Amino acid sequence: MKCIKCDKEAVYFRVYSGEAYCVKHFIASIEEKVRSTIRKYRMLDIDDRIAVGVSGGKDSLTLLRILAKIERRFPKAKLYAITIDEGIERYREESIKLASREASKLGVQHIVVSFEELYGLTLDDMIAEAKKRSLKLTPCSICGILRRKALNYTAVKVGANKLATAHNLDDEAQTLIVNILHGDLFRLIRTKPVTDYREGFVRRIKPLREIPEKEIALYAYLEGIEFQSEPCPYRGVSIRSEVRLFLNTLEENHPGIKFTVVRMWDTIRSIMERELPRVELKRCRLCGDPSVSDVCSGCSILIALDVKGSRIWMQD
Amino acid sequence: MKCIKCDKEAVYFRVYSGEAYCVKHFIASIEEKVRSTIRKYRMLDIDDRIAVGVSGGKDSLTLLRILAKIERRFPKAKLYAITIDEGIERYREESIKLASREASKLGVQHIVVSFEELYGLTLDDMIAEAKKRSLKLTPCSICGILRRKALNYTAVKVGANKLATAHNLDDEAQTLIVNILHGDLFRLIRTKPVTDYREGFVRRIKPLREIPEKEIALYAYLEGIEFQSEPCPYRGVSIRSEVRLFLNTLEENHPGIKFTVVRMWDTIRSIMERELPRVELKRCRLCGDPSVSDVCSGCSILIALDVKGSRIWMQD
Repeated sequence: MKCIKCDKEAVYFRVYSGEAYCVKHFIASIEEKVRSTIRKYRMLDIDDRIAVGVSGGKDSLTLLRILAKIERRFPKAKLYAITIDEGIERYREESIKLASREASKLGVQHIVVSFEELYGLTLDDMIAEAKKRSLKLTPCSICGILRRKALNYTAVKVGANKLATAHNLDDEAQTLIVNILHGDLFRLIRTKPVTDYREGFVRRIKPLREIPEKEIALYAYLEGIEFQSEPCPYRGVSIRSEVRLFLNTLEENHPGIKFTVVRMWDTIRSIMERELPRVELKRCRLCGDPSVSDVCSGCSILIALDVKGSRIWMQD
Repeated sequence: MKCIKCDKEAVYFRVYSGEAYCVKHFIASIEEKVRSTIRKYRMLDIDDRIAVGVSGGKDSLTLLRILAKIERRFPKAKLYAITIDEGIERYREESIKLASREASKLGVQHIVVSFEELYGLTLDDMIAEAKKRSLKLTPCSICGILRRKALNYTAVKVGANKLATAHNLDDEAQTLIVNILHGDLFRLIRTKPVTDYREGFVRRIKPLREIPEKEIALYAYLEGIEFQSEPCPYRGVSIRSEVRLFLNTLEENHPGIKFTVVRMWDTIRSIMERELPRVELKRCRLCGDPSVSDVCSGCSILIALDVKGSRIWMQD
């Protein structure tokens, strides 16, 4: 099979569009897709200070590399790579090293912030503590909430006005189906390409939301990006893993189904947003972050774990 | 385990509600659920002429039996059982016999109408013809559209103002997920407990939409309903069968998930209906049924199969 852009032998056939690509044009097609996603949802302005959440996996290192390429053409823009060190022994160390190396290669400032310095405990400690207290908190729920909080905290500290995360098409389609299965309308509405502006929250953008996971993996491989491929030791069985399997099986037989799900939801959300009242947020009385209740979900976890003091808490 | 209503030994434990039932109270709980579904969505009025689509399977025979029990208390209401004989050799004969027997036992008039007399061809003939002409029509798509059309045609003929079908909770949850995967917003909005009034269409109601398939099967068994359990010979692999498997697996681990999906969609639909304009329908120029295009989907199939004349077509 030949590349549709030149005469070279193709290395990838994009089933859902019927296009074949050589190495060079596959890479170009991914980068163009990211640029067009950014344009379509007006994710970036020319003078943005963009914090990129970089875990050290294939998705976030790909995002960092592509944004660094784009940023070269916008001298007023600035990039920061932020890695949250949750404190997972014999796992996180390697990915931090890989993230640092890639950031320095790209000339991007790399900031590493740990759960321990922000919250006083590592994730390993928190999980042990939750178990001791028989709390109904899974490792993923603790980590998900506190990692998001740490990313926002750090993005605010470095003065960023955008926070880019590496959610890909598979992540987005999975999240939609999971929220439908959970009956979580609030989260369904909130899952969007660019979050609304809320004072205290840096606006989050997802430039990879229209790229299938498989194509990001190939991009990272062809671009020679070194990434951590070992899965997190706490990764367990969840509805999300069942949904992932289901969508991947369906995609095999019906190419393009993940796009369909995400696009369809974009339409439904845009219609529903007109009808639903904007939820007014309070401020968490501990950390000051916007929150639906008096104490935000992150600080509620810290209290349940009996954390005595946290750097993120306001001083009285 | 004891029944929650009396001291008898329980025969069924309803995982999603934590309730155990003896035979008598399980049967009562299903019948009460149907009554409350009818009340909740205002499916019936006291003087309705209700056509019930009866295939002869467990769902439709259960629906017929429960509606017959309810109808006894409403002397002004009238029930008709309608069976569509698609013309599937060595399959449909048995279910027609079972439907007839049950209807006569309940004192309900039973009307059998065949594809052959309405359209001039049996389903078997249509499938052979579609194959000969290399049409992209699956047996299920031909049958689904033309069976629905035949049901409505017959319901109108007998003077019914409601058409009850036996879609259960599993069917409803599957349909929602299938339509999301297909990106079919129009069908998503249209899938509702009671269809809107459209001249030419008898309003369709789904009194079993909140009862899991498994519980209908148990009800039919305990009530001694004889039903056809052999699957249709044309049943093939479809997205729906993948979705069925997926939802059943999830339901095992997360009891109540099918309810969650259906309820959530009820909320989303009610919000979206306020925003979306009502689609104005034309009339099909062949049969006169309401239709989005000049020729409705049923008549389009008949034309593609080169049917020369149909009883449903208007005379010029």
